[in-house]
Amino acid sequence: MKRAVVLLSGGLDSATVLAWMRREGYACHALSFRYGQRHEIELARAAELAHALGAVEHKVAEIDLRAFGGSALTADIDVPKDRADGEISSGVPITYVPARNTIFLAFALAYAETIRSSDIAIGVNAIDYSGYPDCRPEFIASFERLANLATAAATEDGARFKIHTPLQMLSKAGIVRLAVELGVPVGRTLSCYDPLPNGTPCGHCDACILRRKGFAEAGVVDGG
Amino acid sequence: MKRAVVLLSGGLDSATVLAWMRREGYACHALSFRYGQRHEIELARAAELAHALGAVEHKVAEIDLRAFGGSALTADIDVPKDRADGEISSGVPITYVPARNTIFLAFALAYAETIRSSDIAIGVNAIDYSGYPDCRPEFIASFERLANLATAAATEDGARFKIHTPLQMLSKAGIVRLAVELGVPVGRTLSCYDPLPNGTPCGHCDACILRRKGFAEAGVVDGG
Repeated sequence: MKRAVVLLSGGLDSATVLAWMRREGYACHALSFRYGQRHEIELARAAELAHALGAVEHKVAEIDLRAFGGSALTADIDVPKDRADGEISSGVPITYVPARNTIFLAFALAYAETIRSSDIAIGVNAIDYSGYPDCRPEFIASFERLANLATAAATEDGARFKIHTPLQMLSKAGIVRLAVELGVPVGRTLSCYDPLPNGTPCGHCDACILRRKGFAEAGVVDGG
Repeated sequence: MKRAVVLLSGGLDSATVLAWMRREGYACHALSFRYGQRHEIELARAAELAHALGAVEHKVAEIDLRAFGGSALTADIDVPKDRADGEISSGVPITYVPARNTIFLAFALAYAETIRSSDIAIGVNAIDYSGYPDCRPEFIASFERLANLATAAATEDGARFKIHTPLQMLSKAGIVRLAVELGVPVGRTLSCYDPLPNGTPCGHCDACILRRKGFAEAGVVDGG
């Protein structure tokens, strides 16, 4: 059975990617990060989802992005609330974490090489959240080229790394529909940037607004 | 004054890079990692060298490469000792850490973007230690391209990231000569993979053998 490393945050998108990769026939090794994010509840949800969706392993790597600051997700900057729809997609959001997906993919690459896997999956999406430069297809393609230069697996053993991005061209509504089709327990996924400690979403941050819109457009009741 | 992030391990090569970047006129922000390496003494040396060579800041980021294992530098695998010269450069060494330079450069990129720097320096070297795939010029060039796609600084603010590799084409003897020329306190640098807790090098690992050869060829007494 082919092995894959799947980046898993506890959110809807990465849970859907995990379910997708399982359906594609991969033995999935889920990878989450404790990176100084505001809330730990997303890691609890990631563990729950890894189990529910049949990952063979779930690792949590400790990294320290707070050392550098620079984002509302890791520093003492307020997460914006109740912004109008148009504002969400204008420019790079304050919730952008410098080089985050580069760091996450670098760890995934180390993990993949160690377990002799050459498949990595990540829930980036270029449609509804195009403000993040490290979610774009050209960034992912560039990382794939890098992976094939960076590792002993590729340079010595002939491995060809592939970065799977099944959500790349889907709208949020499309992701919701795919999640339901794949049997993701969507009510256990957490999208909110600023939830209560018990996991209740704030309902007002960009991620909550986008999620609500996606479920509405897909005609799916959230929490199901 | 232009700012640069300099990856600093406490070894001879990275200390020489720091001294080089200082001479080039950069305000240098040194970055080290606590990554589950066998010995902590190299971090103490890194702090000492950052101070001695005039870095404006020295950060130590905590990362957890031991979670993945896979290398003699982070897992319970013996560091090879007293190998003949020819063995050192044949293939990828057991001391190779999967995706290590990819991870280190990803963190440097996050740090650089946060302090509005677009210059990163790393002591990779393609000559004497060509067994590491992530020390080759094509890997560095690929990371530079990635950096210019990965960040808000590059995609929104017009920054052009450059990865400086002043040691790329130098022999170990050449690095020793450069270090001396730049005033690096070479006796305080630590190359050994498996030193005593007090910092005394083992004298028998690949790094010790290579260092001894470099000093001999340069006609420089080590420890000076």
